[in-house]
Order: sequence, then C-alpha cells, then structure tokens
Amino acid sequence: MVNENQHTCSASSSSKSDGGSSSGSESSKDSSRCSTPVLDAERHERLREKMRRRQDSGDRWFSLEFFPPRTANAAVNLISRFDRMAAGGPLFIDVTWHPAGDPGSDKETSSMIIANTAVNYCGLETILHMTCCNQTKDDITGHLQKAKRLGLKNIMALRGDPVGEEWEEEVHGFNHAVDLVKHIRSEFDDYFDICVAGYPKGHPEAESYEADLKHLKEKVLAGADFIITQLFFRPETFLKFMKDCQAIGITCPIIPGIFPIQGYHSLRQLVKLSKLEVPQEIKDVIEPIKDNDAAIRNYGVELAVSMCRELLDSGLVHGLHFYTLNREVATTEVLKRLGIWNEDPRRPLPWAVSAHPKRRVEDVRPIFWASRPKSYIYRTQEWDDFPNGRWGNSSSPAFGELKDYYLFYLKSKSPREELLKMWGEELTGEESVFEVFTCYITGEPNKNGHRVTCMPWNDDPLATETSLLKEQLEKVNRRGILTINSQPNINGKPSTDPIFGWGPSGGYVFQKAYLEFFTSSEIVTALLKVLKKYELRVNYHIVNVKGQNITNAPDLQPNAVTWGIFPGREIIQPTVVDPVSFLSWKDEAFALWIEQWAKLYEEESPSRMIIQYIHDNYYLVNLVDNDFPLENCLWQVVDDTFELLNSPPQQ
Amino acid sequence: MVNENQHTCSASSSSKSDGGSSSGSESSKDSSRCSTPVLDAERHERLREKMRRRQDSGDRWFSLEFFPPRTANAAVNLISRFDRMAAGGPLFIDVTWHPAGDPGSDKETSSMIIANTAVNYCGLETILHMTCCNQTKDDITGHLQKAKRLGLKNIMALRGDPVGEEWEEEVHGFNHAVDLVKHIRSEFDDYFDICVAGYPKGHPEAESYEADLKHLKEKVLAGADFIITQLFFRPETFLKFMKDCQAIGITCPIIPGIFPIQGYHSLRQLVKLSKLEVPQEIKDVIEPIKDNDAAIRNYGVELAVSMCRELLDSGLVHGLHFYTLNREVATTEVLKRLGIWNEDPRRPLPWAVSAHPKRRVEDVRPIFWASRPKSYIYRTQEWDDFPNGRWGNSSSPAFGELKDYYLFYLKSKSPREELLKMWGEELTGEESVFEVFTCYITGEPNKNGHRVTCMPWNDDPLATETSLLKEQLEKVNRRGILTINSQPNINGKPSTDPIFGWGPSGGYVFQKAYLEFFTSSEIVTALLKVLKKYELRVNYHIVNVKGQNITNAPDLQPNAVTWGIFPGREIIQPTVVDPVSFLSWKDEAFALWIEQWAKLYEEESPSRMIIQYIHDNYYLVNLVDNDFPLENCLWQVVDDTFELLNSPPQQ
Repeated sequence: MVNENQHTCSASSSSKSDGGSSSGSESSKDSSRCSTPVLDAERHERLREKMRRRQDSGDRWFSLEFFPPRTANAAVNLISRFDRMAAGGPLFIDVTWHPAGDPGSDKETSSMIIANTAVNYCGLETILHMTCCNQTKDDITGHLQKAKRLGLKNIMALRGDPVGEEWEEEVHGFNHAVDLVKHIRSEFDDYFDICVAGYPKGHPEAESYEADLKHLKEKVLAGADFIITQLFFRPETFLKFMKDCQAIGITCPIIPGIFPIQGYHSLRQLVKLSKLEVPQEIKDVIEPIKDNDAAIRNYGVELAVSMCRELLDSGLVHGLHFYTLNREVATTEVLKRLGIWNEDPRRPLPWAVSAHPKRRVEDVRPIFWASRPKSYIYRTQEWDDFPNGRWGNSSSPAFGELKDYYLFYLKSKSPREELLKMWGEELTGEESVFEVFTCYITGEPNKNGHRVTCMPWNDDPLATETSLLKEQLEKVNRRGILTINSQPNINGKPSTDPIFGWGPSGGYVFQKAYLEFFTSSEIVTALLKVLKKYELRVNYHIVNVKGQNITNAPDLQPNAVTWGIFPGREIIQPTVVDPVSFLSWKDEAFALWIEQWAKLYEEESPSRMIIQYIHDNYYLVNLVDNDFPLENCLWQVVDDTFELLNSPPQQ
Repeated sequence: MVNENQHTCSASSSSKSDGGSSSGSESSKDSSRCSTPVLDAERHERLREKMRRRQDSGDRWFSLEFFPPRTANAAVNLISRFDRMAAGGPLFIDVTWHPAGDPGSDKETSSMIIANTAVNYCGLETILHMTCCNQTKDDITGHLQKAKRLGLKNIMALRGDPVGEEWEEEVHGFNHAVDLVKHIRSEFDDYFDICVAGYPKGHPEAESYEADLKHLKEKVLAGADFIITQLFFRPETFLKFMKDCQAIGITCPIIPGIFPIQGYHSLRQLVKLSKLEVPQEIKDVIEPIKDNDAAIRNYGVELAVSMCRELLDSGLVHGLHFYTLNREVATTEVLKRLGIWNEDPRRPLPWAVSAHPKRRVEDVRPIFWASRPKSYIYRTQEWDDFPNGRWGNSSSPAFGELKDYYLFYLKSKSPREELLKMWGEELTGEESVFEVFTCYITGEPNKNGHRVTCMPWNDDPLATETSLLKEQLEKVNRRGILTINSQPNINGKPSTDPIFGWGPSGGYVFQKAYLEFFTSSEIVTALLKVLKKYELRVNYHIVNVKGQNITNAPDLQPNAVTWGIFPGREIIQPTVVDPVSFLSWKDEAFALWIEQWAKLYEEESPSRMIIQYIHDNYYLVNLVDNDFPLENCLWQVVDDTFELLNSPPQQ
C-alpha cells in the first residue's frame, strides 16, 4: 500500500499543520504544534467531525439512545450496560430529558448525571437531550452551563411535550426547538454540537408534512449540525423523507431512528406517545403472538435487520440510531447481524480513556487505580489539566476526598447477600481471608460452593494479563500475600499484541513487572531483609494505614512501568508508580476493607474484627522489578521471603 | 552491597523529599516533588554543596585556574582546552579578572565572556574572579548582575592590585576583599557562592601573619563559603596555615593552590607578582637547568606530585587547586600521577550538558545539532525554560538568528589554509565534494595526502558510534549521499555500555536508526519512490534551502530517537527528531556550505560556484527507522534508491 499521508508544508517554521483537526475546539492552544499529541486523532474530534470522517471513509456506524433510570440501583445497572455496549463501538449514545424527573439536578438518576457518567466514566461520546417549553431562559442557560462544565459537548434540542392539554405559545418564550437552537448558538457560540429531531411522517402537531419540513430547515439554518429522526416502520418512509429534505436544501447528516420491536406493550406505549400508526402488515404478525415475548422479539429483530439493510444498501445512510428502551439484547443482535457491532480489541491506551474534553490529552495515570478506573476519574475530576507526558511535572495532585464518593466507592455493584456468599458469611481467622483472595484468583468455588467474581479493589473481573500470572498469584495469596494488582514484564511486544498491545499499529509496548499486595508486618520484616540484596533492581513502597512509609526510591519521582514506542512519536508512558499518589491510593485501598467488607458483618462480630485487624495492622506493598528485559524476579523475592520466615532464627 | 538509601517518609502526601538538595536555589519550585527530576543529583547542587559531598564521601577532587586570552584565536584554543581538560573531571574551573583587559565587557576575550563560555558551552562549574579596588559600587553591581544573567553562580572576591604606586583607602569605597564579600551578600543574598583568597605566608602587605589571618576570618564571617590559597612551595607551609586558620575558628573549606613549575621565566614572573620567595632548595635545582625547559617541567611535575601527595596524606586536604597558566601538559600529568584525573566514560545524557542554572532540567534536544552542541546552546540561550521530558509541550521554539553568531558559527576552529588542504584547493565538480565527505568518514588522506579531520557540520571528530557505521557511510557518500549525522539502532543495551550508554547504572538505553544527509534532487526523486514501500516504518523529512518540505510525518510531533529506562524513574528521551526545529536547523546546515566552505574560494571561481550550486539545489534529508528491534533498514532504502536510479527507465 502506498502511504497517502505525504504532504508538503510551507517553509515557515511557524506553519500550522495542515492535518489539524480540532478547529473551533475550546482546548486547542495557539501553537505551531499540531494539537493532537496523543495517539488517536478521533479522540480530539467533535462529534460532527467524527460523523464526517465516517461518511468520507465509508465506515458504517451506529448510536444508542437511553432514558434515565428511576432508582440508584437501576443507575448502577445502566452504567454497567453502558460499559458492555461501549464494547460494540457506538459513535455516540444519547440520554433523554425527562422534565418531570428533575433532569438537570445532581441526583444520581437525573438526565444530567447519567450523561455525565457516560462521558466521563464510560468514555462515551454523549448527546444530552434538552427540552425548552415551559422553561425560563435562565433555567435553560443554567442547564447548558452545567452540561458544559461536566464535559458534555452535544445537545439534542427539543421542544418537549407541553404541560396540560391546551398549550399556548409564550411571547418571547421558548415555543419551538428552533428557539432553543438559536439560544444555544447565541449564548455558547460553536461550543456545542446540536442535534434536532426530524419526523419522517411529519410532526403530529404540524399543519402539514411540507410545513414540518420547513420547520426542520429552520432548525438547521438556526445552527443544528445533524438530524435524528423519529422512529418509523418502513424504510421507504425514511428514504422519501430524506429526499424531500435534500430537495428543500437540507444538507446536514440525517440519521434514521431505528426501533427494534421488543414487546407488545412497549410498542403500544411508544406508538401512543409518538402518535404514530403501526402498519397493518406488522399488526397482522404481532396480534396473534402478543403474549409470546420471545416470538415478538425475534420478529422485531428480523424486521429491524431487514429495514436497516435496505437503508444501508440505499447508499444514502451511513449511520443508524437505535431506540434501545434501555435494553441490550435486541439491539445488540441487530447490530451483530448487520456486521456493524465492532468489538475492536485494540486499546488507545492501557486504561480506558474518559471523553471529557479537558481529559483529551490525558496520557498517564498511576497504576494503583488500574482496577478502579471510575474511582480514579472521580477523584481527579476537579483537576484543571492533566499530566501530559511527565507525571512529575504536574503540581502535587490533590485527590478528591474519600467522603465525596457516590457511585464508585461506597457501593459495590453486587448486593450484600451476594457479597457474603463470595467473601464468607463468617470468617474464622486471617486464613479465611487468604482463602477468599485465592478463590478470586483461581476462579475455583469457595468451600460453600460460590465463585468469588469480584473484590473490593476491582471494578471488573480479573484482566487477561493477570490470568497469565494465575499460578504464582495463587501460591502467594494462599500464604498471606494478598495481591490486588499486578502485571508481568514485557520487553517489546508489537503494539497490536492481543493481550498486551495498545496504541496505533507499528509500535512496541513494554512493561516492568509490578506486584501490589496487603500483607502482615511479620512478612514485611522478612521481605525488607530479602529486598536489600536486590538493591535498586526492585523499587518498593511499603505503607500501613497510619501512613508509616518505607521505600528505597531515592526521591519522589514516578517510575514508568508501562510505555510504548511508536513511529513518528514521542515515547508514551501511560502508567507510572507514583510515590505521592500512592499515599492517596493507600487511604482508599485501606478504607475499602472497612466500607465494602467489614461492614457486611455486625459490629463487634468476630468476622468484622478480623477485617478490622487486617485493616489496622497489615501493610500495603508495591514492588517494581526494574530489569524488564530479564526474567521477572518478584516471585523469587516472595519465595526468598517465605524461605527466610521458615528458616530457624539465627543466634 | 546493601542499599543505604532506604528512608522513611512522613505520611502526608505533600511532604518534601528528605533527599532534597537544591535548597536556596533560585530555580527550585515550590512543589511536593523532589526538585531533581533529572538523572544526576550533582547537576542540581551549588558548588559549596558539591564540595561538601566530596568531603563527606572522601572522594578527592581538583580544580583549574585560567586567565583570559589576549586574542580571539587564543580564545578558540582556550575553549578547546576547557573541553579537553573537562574530560578529567575538575570540580570547577576559575577565570581570573584582569582590570586592564575590560574584564566585564562583551568582548570574546573578556573574563566575563570566557567564564560564560566555560559554564554554558563547556558545561563546567565556573568561578569568576572579581576585584573591587578603584571601582564604583554601580560598576561592581553591574558586573555581578551580568554574571548572574549569564548563569555564573560563583565569585572569587578579591581586592585587586591598586593602580599606581601609592594607594590610599577611599572612604565608603571598596578597599578590601571583605567589602566586596559584604556587597555581594547584601545585594544578591545567597545567590552566589563566594570564594576568597588565603595567603599561607600572609599577604605581603599585611602588618603581620596573624593580622592577615584575622582579615581572612573577617572575609569568612562576611559570607565567604570557602578559601583558595595563594601558591606555596612547601607542604608544611599550607598545613601550618590551615591549622592556624582552624585555631582562630575558620571552619570553611580551605583549598591549597598548587603551582607546578613549568619554566624558569614563568616562575620568576609569578614570584615577582606574588612577592613570594622561592626556597633555596628549589633554586639550587633550577638554576643549573634554567635553559632546559623539559628538565624544569619534569622537575616541576615531580615537586608538585610529591607536595600534593603529602597534602592529601595529611587527611586535611580533599581538593587541590591548580594554577595552570593556561597550559595543559604539566597539570594533567600531575593529576594523572596522583590518580585524581578521572576520565569517566559515563555520560549523564547522550549530549554534553550545560551548567547554566536554568538549563539544569534540560533533558531533551533535537538530534540535528548533535555534532554542533555549542551552536545549539547559543541559539537557544534566550529561552526562558527548557523542554522537560516532552519536547512537544514547549511553545514553538524560536531559535536565535544566524547572524547573531560569533564563536560557534562563522569561524571554523581551523585556519583557512588548513581547511583548503582538507576540503580542496580547487574543486572540479560535485564529485570532488563527494570525495571530501568520503575522506572524512574513512580517515584516509585525500588525493593531496591530507586527512579531513573536520567538516562544517561537526564541532568534533567522528563519534565512536558513527565509526561503527563507517563501511556503509563510505559507500553512500562516494555516490553522493553526503551524510552529516547518523546513529545506529539499539534495542536495549545496559546504560553502562562504553559506547552507547548514558545515565545512571542499572538502566537500559535504546535508539532508533537515524541518517541525515544532503543529496541531489535526482536522488531525492528516486528515494521518495523507494520510501513509499516502507510506509510508516521510515519517517522522513526532506527540505531544500527554499524551505520546500516533504514529509510523511502525520503531524508536527517529535519522534523520540534516543531514550532510556532507569530504576525508579520516568522514561528519559533526550534526543528527538523534531519537525519544527528541523526547519531552523536547515537554515544553519545550508548556510554552513557558504560560510565555511564556499567563502574559502574567490568569488565567481569554479570551486565556489560548485558549492553554491549544491547549496542552491541539494536537499537536506533525514530518515528514521522506527522498527528499532529489527535490523536497520535505512541502508536498504539507500541501496534500493541507487538500484532504482540505475535501472532502465520504464516506458
């Protein structure tokens, strides 16, 4: 293949890169440098640019619509669903705006906070819906300012359903979506990408289909960037609408809204709300099977797949928008059958990136939060800018207080009963705790037959690369080296390696072996003796809950433990062992013993006192083997430690 | 060995590193981080701290005194001598102050500018002498401000010799060195380290030896940090003086001034100036051999070695200060025989560091100036701060104008006649130029029997690692690929490797293969065709004198081509191919054809027109092979290019 990237620049050393991509972005600095120092260009583009790039490249895409949940538990489940569906590679998701549900509030179930979670914690490009009728200018401006502050970059501007039967236009008020579009553009200039709704059959309240098309054109002229349509049942409905739009000069992207029928009742409800009519041929199929959910869903998937195929084959449609009703199965199946569910194993960085604009240049994090990325994002959300290249260059990182926690700290995703089954209804000693750690590593059921699928220190199941260390990890956990984080050493694997790879192709990735664990002071004493003979080959930080800190690091510099070398780039070092933030992590890591584990048991109960004892007396240890080209020596360190403990005391 | 570095920190995450070293330094920022992000702690210490560290560790050291030269040519020679003597590892050098020679001016021979060159361009810790008698406060303050601005951190405060026979004290003037010490401390606080002179036999003008000791104590009390003594001829003179100083409470370091006798006349002159008496036993040896320079020098070396041994063996002396008289041989021999000439092959970074305080954190440079480091330092001297870790983070680097050049640009170190012998009295075509490049690479004499030991693009002879590429370089230069910079690829050699290593031990260093050359547009056309098939494996930047720039780099990011991984550190990437500064280098690289080479010949002469033609029509090319773990493909690229040129044109 010929490299098409070759280009000719002007002679001036202050010339802008002609590949510059983030025009109009608030974070692009005035510099001769290209504003994309990180690895993936798309991370720096706004949604309308991503859409254009996909259209130009011919890559088909999809997006997913969700509504805000009613309860905190439902919110936790929805966020897990975001993470799972993010794996398929949606171009964006959107979150609807429910005026009755206090949508702009700080409640964990509000539209605003759910959209905030999607963009910041799940790394999803997100559109927040917003309706305007019956609201003051100040309220709306306040919502928009808050959305901007939270890192939201896209608004779906809607009129919303009027309250009460008889609705009258307010003079100087927000009576139509176009008023909201104008308001956003006048108050926030080009900051937001704006989406508006299109009605393939015309808005039910419009005078006519033609009049509605004119309203749509007004919204686009007022500054909307693209259109998502209301659901429809026949592909020709959309294709005619699209041609009619083009005929009156609407040139922006128009994305068909796809509703896979998932059940009789949800269909009836949606149809009622949207004032649409279900075609007779669909009614004929559904009515006879209306009590058979599985049959209806199968039919819905078939219907959606065939409609989507027809749309895509027309050549006019590049992306499909799915009304998921917060469900997963039907939409995922349609996408898989269409071949646009794209589980790309490549990662831009070893950790999941956030989509907040100010985090676009973030390219280094301490390794400690590797299994609790959401907690890390939460505790660093107030940072003004993110360490870019050198961690040590940033001023001392101030981490959010533990008491601030909301969704990612105090609550385990699993209910108490399930946790007790996994972590033990009753603990008989420290060995019971060793057993829990061991079962988590091995995947074997505990003595009551339950598998341990999560631990307080892990948002997610064991990573593949950790599984590679399973045998050694099992051995040491059984003896009271309670591991919570580890990685093997890697001496230059291709960046496309399915397990260790990250970043663009053509590069090489490296790791230093890392091991982090809780253990008793007796083991720490022996460990320190053993570590002396490894000198600077092994860097260690050993700390207890009171903050007593033992280290051989010569100063407070971070130790890079994951890095990558890529064509035409500076070196990227996305993971470091940072001695300063280790002390913040220490507070969190020790608190999790109490908050997630000890509190499962009655106060004063023996089980609780065992966890409390560990919390009060154990040390948190991290070890780095700096000699990454040699065989990982950390297992030898641990073996030597146990051997020293077992040897008779010297006189 | 046991690592003694283990220490216990406080629990607070904002605690200062207890290894912090640059207290009182103007550049230490208020941060919880240790202020030594670069690799060698000593680079961050002030002179008195370095002295203390050596005293504590028991490592013996030496320092060297020079006087300013009389002519610009002598300045060039002196700077070369600095570089050569820097190899032995002096703790510092000092430059004397000659009131009659306009010592604070911008002349290339002034004390100020010679000290500036030593600190900035030779990377030497430097003390600038300064005398105060017959000068106004304002003049002195002006000199000190200028010294500070140039990066000088140490002053030797002297009275100086009064002008005229009869000298009278001025009321409120600077009458004694102590006045200057007080002035420096009052105007510049703790910024400068201050040295004062001690007289082992008493100052010739002092009322008595005891009175002179009291004056010395006054200077120390006024703020002097250490003492260097006047020369003396017997070790017991110094040892007695030292004990007498200690007896009256002088506790700062006292460094003996050593004068190796190098000739009869220089001895007589110095003795006259310093009003010292040469002991009879020395006179007895010297007088009979006074016309035999070699014999006197041998005797001088013997005498100095034996005296220094006695001083060091006393246990009271840790460092020796040498009055070199700007000569090299005798002092070097004494130091080598004492075993304190320490040619340490280890480099803190792949390039020679500057000793200016604001450059202490400098840890990355573009590769282009690798063979012209002084030019790079000169052209970046106005930068406020230095790229620290990420080159790309700095704002667009503005390089000093070429016309600003003085010592490092227009002048070659060699005289015109010598250059003509090396580069050709008469050129007959481009091939004559190819021949010059080839002879420089191979070390073979040219057709007139002269070796080519320098080129306009190289401050120094060919580096050892370049020699390793000699065979390939010879082949391509012969055919018109005129190489000026190259490095082989390295996939993880120990940081102690004698050729490629740099930084502290225990690390690993890496390189991407790099090749930079001038070549004709015909070769560039073929090269571009060949490069297409290498895609992103090879990054290239190709530019002509007019600034036409062809590259396959996707944006203006730097490409790291040398990096190192060390225990407990972030990754250091000291050398990058930076597309923006390449355009500044291009101007310099092309201008050198004209300024250093073409101008050797008469205007309108054929030789001059050949160089002018190359300057106007050739391209400057740089190539990076990003696949550093594989065999360097750049030679294959060049071979393919020649093959393409030799193949019959396709119809």
